[in-house]
Parts: sequence; structure tokens; C-alpha cells
Amino acid sequence: MESATQTAPITFETSPDQYRHWKLSFDGPVATLAMDVREDAGLRPNDYKLKLNSYDLGVDIELADALQRIRFEHPEVHSVILSSLKPRIFCAGANIFMLGTSGHGFKVNFCKFTNETRLGMEDMSANSGIRFLASINGICAGGGYELALACDEIYLVDDGSASVSLPETPLLGVLPGTGGLTRVVDKRKVRRDVADHFSTLTEGVRGKRAVDWRFVDKACPTSQFKEAVETRARELAAMSDRPSTGPGIALGPLEPTIDADALRYKYVSAVIDRAKRTCDLTISAPDTPQPRTPDEFLQTGDQAWAVRAFRELDDCLLRLRLNEPEIGTIILRAVGDPAAVVAVDASLADHKAHWLVREITGLIRRTLKRVDLTSRSFFALIEPGNAFAGTLFELALAADRAFMIDHAEEENTIQLSVMNGGMYPMSNGLSRLETRFLGEPGSVQAALDHDGPFEPQEALEAGLVFDSPDDIDWDDEVRMAIEARTAFSPDALTGMEANLRFAGPETMETKIFGRLTAWQNWIFQRPNAVGERGALMTYGREGRPSFDWRRT
Amino acid sequence: MESATQTAPITFETSPDQYRHWKLSFDGPVATLAMDVREDAGLRPNDYKLKLNSYDLGVDIELADALQRIRFEHPEVHSVILSSLKPRIFCAGANIFMLGTSGHGFKVNFCKFTNETRLGMEDMSANSGIRFLASINGICAGGGYELALACDEIYLVDDGSASVSLPETPLLGVLPGTGGLTRVVDKRKVRRDVADHFSTLTEGVRGKRAVDWRFVDKACPTSQFKEAVETRARELAAMSDRPSTGPGIALGPLEPTIDADALRYKYVSAVIDRAKRTCDLTISAPDTPQPRTPDEFLQTGDQAWAVRAFRELDDCLLRLRLNEPEIGTIILRAVGDPAAVVAVDASLADHKAHWLVREITGLIRRTLKRVDLTSRSFFALIEPGNAFAGTLFELALAADRAFMIDHAEEENTIQLSVMNGGMYPMSNGLSRLETRFLGEPGSVQAALDHDGPFEPQEALEAGLVFDSPDDIDWDDEVRMAIEARTAFSPDALTGMEANLRFAGPETMETKIFGRLTAWQNWIFQRPNAVGERGALMTYGREGRPSFDWRRT
Repeated sequence: MESATQTAPITFETSPDQYRHWKLSFDGPVATLAMDVREDAGLRPNDYKLKLNSYDLGVDIELADALQRIRFEHPEVHSVILSSLKPRIFCAGANIFMLGTSGHGFKVNFCKFTNETRLGMEDMSANSGIRFLASINGICAGGGYELALACDEIYLVDDGSASVSLPETPLLGVLPGTGGLTRVVDKRKVRRDVADHFSTLTEGVRGKRAVDWRFVDKACPTSQFKEAVETRARELAAMSDRPSTGPGIALGPLEPTIDADALRYKYVSAVIDRAKRTCDLTISAPDTPQPRTPDEFLQTGDQAWAVRAFRELDDCLLRLRLNEPEIGTIILRAVGDPAAVVAVDASLADHKAHWLVREITGLIRRTLKRVDLTSRSFFALIEPGNAFAGTLFELALAADRAFMIDHAEEENTIQLSVMNGGMYPMSNGLSRLETRFLGEPGSVQAALDHDGPFEPQEALEAGLVFDSPDDIDWDDEVRMAIEARTAFSPDALTGMEANLRFAGPETMETKIFGRLTAWQNWIFQRPNAVGERGALMTYGREGRPSFDWRRT
Repeated sequence: MESATQTAPITFETSPDQYRHWKLSFDGPVATLAMDVREDAGLRPNDYKLKLNSYDLGVDIELADALQRIRFEHPEVHSVILSSLKPRIFCAGANIFMLGTSGHGFKVNFCKFTNETRLGMEDMSANSGIRFLASINGICAGGGYELALACDEIYLVDDGSASVSLPETPLLGVLPGTGGLTRVVDKRKVRRDVADHFSTLTEGVRGKRAVDWRFVDKACPTSQFKEAVETRARELAAMSDRPSTGPGIALGPLEPTIDADALRYKYVSAVIDRAKRTCDLTISAPDTPQPRTPDEFLQTGDQAWAVRAFRELDDCLLRLRLNEPEIGTIILRAVGDPAAVVAVDASLADHKAHWLVREITGLIRRTLKRVDLTSRSFFALIEPGNAFAGTLFELALAADRAFMIDHAEEENTIQLSVMNGGMYPMSNGLSRLETRFLGEPGSVQAALDHDGPFEPQEALEAGLVFDSPDDIDWDDEVRMAIEARTAFSPDALTGMEANLRFAGPETMETKIFGRLTAWQNWIFQRPNAVGERGALMTYGREGRPSFDWRRT
């Protein structure tokens, strides 16, 4: 069942000139992202063909890259049409043969990345002034419709055959697991019985019925469809507060140095200890003068620390997730000059209304969410020379635990900044400080009001770190904590962390990851889906699935 | 792995004189529920011994019964001490050998029932004026601590050894899956890093540290413990608005007639078609005069329709869950005189402040939640002679879909009552109408304001039923819908329904079932827990677990 072919490390960097599956084009304030998946260009072309605009992780990596470039390189873009270049086919969803030949962990991580990318579109709509319109020209099934659901609006051609559908339950015995069920009832507010019916229809719904039932916003005859889409895209663009012209900043390649056990970027390094199944992940504070004004940010472009360091961290997390599944514990360190981080924070805060600064803050926000959603244990080690200040202190807050050495001789402090006060909300809508102090809300303001850095005992008393052993106990305590962690069941840790990290309110985003994803992961483990005669395995092959009929 | 010994049907009815594991005693306004589990009296005594006050489903069935009797039979009880009669042992949690020898579906349903019982304690605190105090006299581990977490307050003896702990992750490779992780961070608001640390400690925490970290409310020296618990129990009792004296109403046995394919109670019947894997579940409206005042309810006791019918429905649902796993689709019908249901509703609404009426409404509310949480497909069929009115219409709203025949010759209507306006909130805190009309809140009020019964087309237009085929199409449409449903993967349906039924806000209750349970079910399916060398299987036996170290 687990494919032996899943061996080549996956890389996440690409650029429009390398895209194989998407065409990105521009017309004034409207960009068009058109899907034209190359059948023979999947990540494992020997295992499956990407027919009917079905997708694999490689297709989604290009989509994520395109979204990032629209954000940073094209400030003049105010709305995006998501469409297809294949006649009468929008997108058939995730490739079933890819899923059937992928191992459990890969399937789960593929869905997680896809979910993050789609939530990123909603983040652009909510925070960047970039709205999305899905232009459905034909078959729009499963993950294809889930992609459309991530758009602000959905237009469907009414040609008697174009349809939207979520046929996973009837056809494959799994869920529409990248947000579909949640978005249908919670975002589009389809009535639950209608959603139930729809989610069991292989053929989906078309035309007026799709509109009446809220599955799409508009259905247009073929003759009017193109114009209706273009008109609406311009209307959506007109709502934006993005600038009317560029320039943006170009996102160049990160070019990490990669060897068997280490990934080294300019500001981020990840060094793996395979025997211990740990990774030392270190992020460095800026060591050169950083931009302080929007103009300076525009001039510095992708070399600004705030851009480069978090692009690197994001890339590093994705590589660890997909390529290093056995490395279960990540030791986080931030090193360098904390004052340099706090200075960057001040610049980001001072100019937060500027489109580029907003995008940079958004990049950091999404990368921090990626940490929250990474199913590895994170321990932050706060040692002399650390740079856990402001934005970088969010990493300590995102960690499952933070240890801070209370050194007899060396100074060791942490520091908050204005950026810890709500600029980087988690998926649950709260800041990491608010989530941490759910039981003592006064502690949030007290921490933010604290004047200057926190000494170890101050940090401990303020509840900002888990423990602060002295320098005599430090090595033993940290070693024992890590050794204990790495000995536990990886599955129990994944479940435990997924529950403890998201205290407080639930949002559509946390519902997708907490409720929908957890159920899908369960189903992805069940013989009725992935057994020899499971529905996911028999799809498109001879014979029918054979089910164990017991409900659970 | 799946035990072959799980064959005898499980029954859920018991009474204090039959309890084997609990002692229920009374001292004025304070009841004491003391755990004293008989090692040799588990449901499968050959498979496991219930050592150290560990529990199986049988222990929890007695607890659920005791709670129900305190509600109805003892209005003078205003607070409950949950304690243990075993020296230095409160409760060691769910019995591991029971879990290890149980099939997947049984484990999941056992945890669900346990969760429902504990949420029932919180429901009593919130709605019945009965508060709970856990009196922890020794080891309180895993499910034992989860039981304590369901109490309003937790007192711990500070004797140097008594402790609370959630050792599932380190010891068993599974989660504290009956609310533990959620209640620690969301109810008791323990800081997430502290909760993380705690959830990896096999030995748990004791005394002052347990208080400082919020895991318990008070730790008392042995010499003062008993008095402190009794004093606090009386203080909690003093907050109640329950009457100071009885009488209550006695809950007699339901005495269903049981044959191989049918369960028949007075007002409820369940008839199974094994070939089709369906069950016809029918509830009858009252056919005799019903009580209209609190005094009449007291006189009629457990024979009042509102009490008896919902006790029967509850018992029936539990039997279907545990004993009939292959029966995946439940066809709901309500029959009889709808006016009789609406009249009962009026009596319940008129006297809702009376303690007994409040308990009856609470019984109905919890039973309806049990429907929402039952992982079977529910289709309601609304036919001439139906009694889907008011309270019984909640069953149609709880169903995944409701079909209403639009008959050319016979009258067929549904009707709402005041009880549909928020008296039976779902786990998400909303009424079933509010959840149904999340996208059109005006429709809730419009439905409630509608004068008199709804004809089929009116019901369809108001969005209260899924479809209303005419009498010519009815048989075919219903047959095809049921046939289609029963052919789908049971797992995909479980996941799909768990996502579509709970649109809207999440609460601690929905987090427990949606997030925590779904992850636990995933873990319960993973080889790292239940494989031959999984942690749940090797516990207490020779050898260590062997893990696949890949994180997912």
C-alpha cells in the first residue's frame, strides 16, 4: 500500500517560468490563474497520470507559489479569476491514483498543504485586498470544487453539463477533506440536509439548482459566461485598497545548501540528528541594517530579513514535513541581536497600512500558523545570545514548551514587542499570548506592558516560559525532556498536540484542521478506504469495493 | 485484535439495588457517589479484571443510571460528592486490558457513551442545580481524572502520594480521549505548555503543584480532607434552586419486548431489516390524557409520555449503537396525534421553572443530542398519520434528511411548537432550527411564527423538510434514497455526518466529540496503538511497544 516510489525529496520552490500546470496572466487589476494540468508531469509520473485537470502536490505547490507572487510581485492585482484552460473541465480534484499509491503520512501532509494554500486564498481576501472568483467552465468535482469554495464567489457556466460536486463519499469512501464539508455548511451556509444530499451525489448539481442551493453564486448561459466573469472580477477588484500600480518586489530563489542531514539558508538552518530523531532548527536575527520605511522595504525587496527569514522558515518546515517524517522533535533556537528584531517589528508596526508591509506581516503570520499546524513536537531553547524577541518570540509561544536557562553568569533575556499584541493571530483567531493565557486574560496585558526585557525568573513568573533551570541543571533537564519526548508514540503526540495547541474558540479554519482533517485521517487509515478491497484502492480498477458494514 | 468474546448484547438498564461498582448514599442535600469497582464483575470477566477502580462500560452504565436517578428521584439532592471507597485509589481510568481486547467500534462507542455521561454531569451543573465535587483520595489517573474534570470542583488529599495524571500518551500511546485534553485547556484553562508537560508525565502531579497549575482546586492534608470536602459540598448545595424536600418520581424498568430483530417498548419500536441493514424506528405520540401541571407530572411519574417515550428512545439508541453495528440507516417515524404532542409541549413550556418539568425537558434534550451524536444515517419519513409536531419534530430536524409525502388525497402536515424555539439546544449551543438555517436566520423566526400546521409544499418552501414527493413518486424516491445510503462506505458516512451535522459555533462539547474524539479514533486505528507491538497491546505484558517513528 505504501508506495516505494515516494523517495525523491520534494522541493517547494518554483517560479512562473517553471510552471507546468498553471498559466498566470494579467489584465490590469485582474489576474487569471488558469489550470492546465499536464497529465504526464505529476511528481510520480510512473504511478499516475494527471488526467482531467486532477492534481497532485506538485500542482498545488505551483498554485501556492503563484498566490505568493501575486501578493508580493503584483500589487496592481486586486482580484483573481481561477479558471481552467481545458474545455468543459474545471478540475476533477485530487488524483485518485496518486492517493491510492501514496502512504498514509504523505496523504495527510498533502491534504494539509492543500488546505493551507486554500486558507491562504481566504487570508488574501480578508487581509490583502485580493478577491477570488472561480470561473467554472465544466466538471468541477471533489478537490476541484473545494478549490472553488475557497474563492469569494463561484460562477458556473449553465450549459446543461457543467456541474459542481463532492463525490468522495459515494465514489471513493473518503471525505472531501480539504475543507469541502466545512465550507459548504459553515462558509456558504448550505442547509445541512441539502449538503448531505449533495455530498452523496456522484453527478453533483448544475445550473439554477446549484444557485438555489447556494453551491454557486451565479449560473450563466455559455454565451454570457465569459463576460459575466470578467465583469464581476472587475467589480471585485474595485473593492480593493491595493495600489493601482507597481512596482512590487520580486521573490528570488532561496538557494539553500542541502546535504544529507542539514538544510542551510541565509537566516535559517536545520540540522538533523537521525539517531536521536531530532532537528536543531535555528533562525538568526538580522545582522545588517534593515529597511525602516515602505520605500526602503521596496528597495530591499526579498533580501529584507523579515521577508527572507520567513520564506526560508516556511520552506524549511515544508521540507521537514514531507521529507523527514521520522524527525519528530524540533529544537527551536533564535540567535543574534534581539534589538535588531525589535527594530524590524517597529518598522512593520509603524507602516502596517502600507500594502507591502501588510504582505510581509501576512507572510510571517502564515508561516507561524504553519508551525502551529506542523505535527512535530517543538521545544524552544532560550540560551544566552538568543534573539527570542518580538516576532521571533512568537516561535517560543508556538512551541509546545520553552525552556530558558537561568545562567549564573551570562545574561539571558526575552522581550516582547508590539507585534506580540495581536498582529499574528493563530487559526483560532486569538493571538498566541491570548491563547496561552486563556485562564488569566490579565496576564496578556501585563506581559505586553512589561518594560524592557524579561530576566529568566521574570519570564517564568509572567508565564512566558515553561521552565528556567539554572546552568547547572540545564543540560540534564533539556536532555531528559527531549529524550522523553522522542520516546513517545508519534501518533499519540500528533493527537495530543493537535488538541492542546488550539485552546479557546474554534473558527472555520480550526474546524477544517481539527474536525474535518481528523476524521479524514481516520478514514484514510480504515480498510474500507485503503484496504486491498477499499474504495480508494478499487476506484477505476476492476471490481467493486468490499465494505465491512459496521458503523463506528 | 477484535475480541470474539464481545457477543452478548449489552443492556443499559440498571438500578441502585443492582449496582456492583458504585454506592449511592444521601445526607440531606448532599449525595455521595462512591466508586468501589468489583474486580471480577466486568462485562467480560474472562478477558480482564477491573483492578484499582478501573472501569469498563458496565461501570459507566451504573454511573449514568445513578445520575439519572439523582435528577428524578432525589430533588432534595443539590450537590454530589464523587469519591472512592478504595483506600488511596480514586480511579485508575478505563481498564487497559478491556481496551486492548475490544474491537475498534466498541472502543469508540464506549468512549462516546462515557463522554456523554460526563457531559451529562456538566449539564446537571448548568441546568439542574446539581453541582459536583470530586474528592480525590489517592491515585486518579487517565479516565479517572477525566471523570474528576467533569466535576465543578476537584479536591485532592495532600498526603504525599495522591495525584492526578493523564498518562495515556506516555504509557499507552493513545489520548486521554474522554474529554481530558479539552477540559484541561478549555474548561480548567491550564496553560498549554503546562498541559503538554502534564500529559506526558506518567506520575502526574500532587499537592500544591496540582493547585498552582489549576489541575485541582484545593489540596488538603489528610487530617482536614474529609471535613473540607463535606463543607464544600454543602456550600455547593446551597447554591441550588432545587426544592429542599421530595418527593421525586421513581424510574421503573422499561421492560421492552426483545426478539432477534425487534425491540418493542410502550412508545418506541425498532424493527430491523438485516438484509437491507436498516432499522425502522418509530415513536408514538401520547394516546392517553397527559399531565398538565407539576403536581400531575409528580403523580404520573415515569409513566408520563414525555418521560417514558424519551427514556425508551434513549435506551433504544444505545442498544442499536452497541449491539447492532451493521444497521447503518435508521428510518425515523413519529406516529399518532400531533395535537397530543403539542399539548404536552404546552405543559412543559408553561411549567418550565418547576424542577421536575426542567428535568423532563433535560431528558428530552440529552436524548436528542444522543441522536445527533449517533453515527448512523437518519432519514425521517413524514407520512399521513404522522406526529412530527413540536418536540417530535426535533427528530426530523436531527435527521440527515426528512422526506414528506405530498399526498393527493390524505392530509399530511407537520407542526412546530414553542419547544422548537430553543428549549433543546444541540451540542453547538444552537437550536436545531438555528443550525439548519445558519444561512438565513430570518427563516427560524418565520417558521416559529407560522400559524398552525405546515402542508407539504409549505414545509418544503419553509425549508423544514428536504423533499416532498407526491404519492406516486414517494415509494420509489424513498426506496432509492435508502438503497443509495446503505451502499456507501460506513466510515465515509460517519465522517461526513460528523461534519455536516454541526455547522456553526463550536463549544467545549463539540470540541470533545469533533476534535478530541476524531483524533482518538484515528489513534485507535493506528498500529502504534493497536498493532501487535502497539503500546495499547503491550501494556502490562512482557516487552516494550515497537513504534513506526514516522510522524503524520
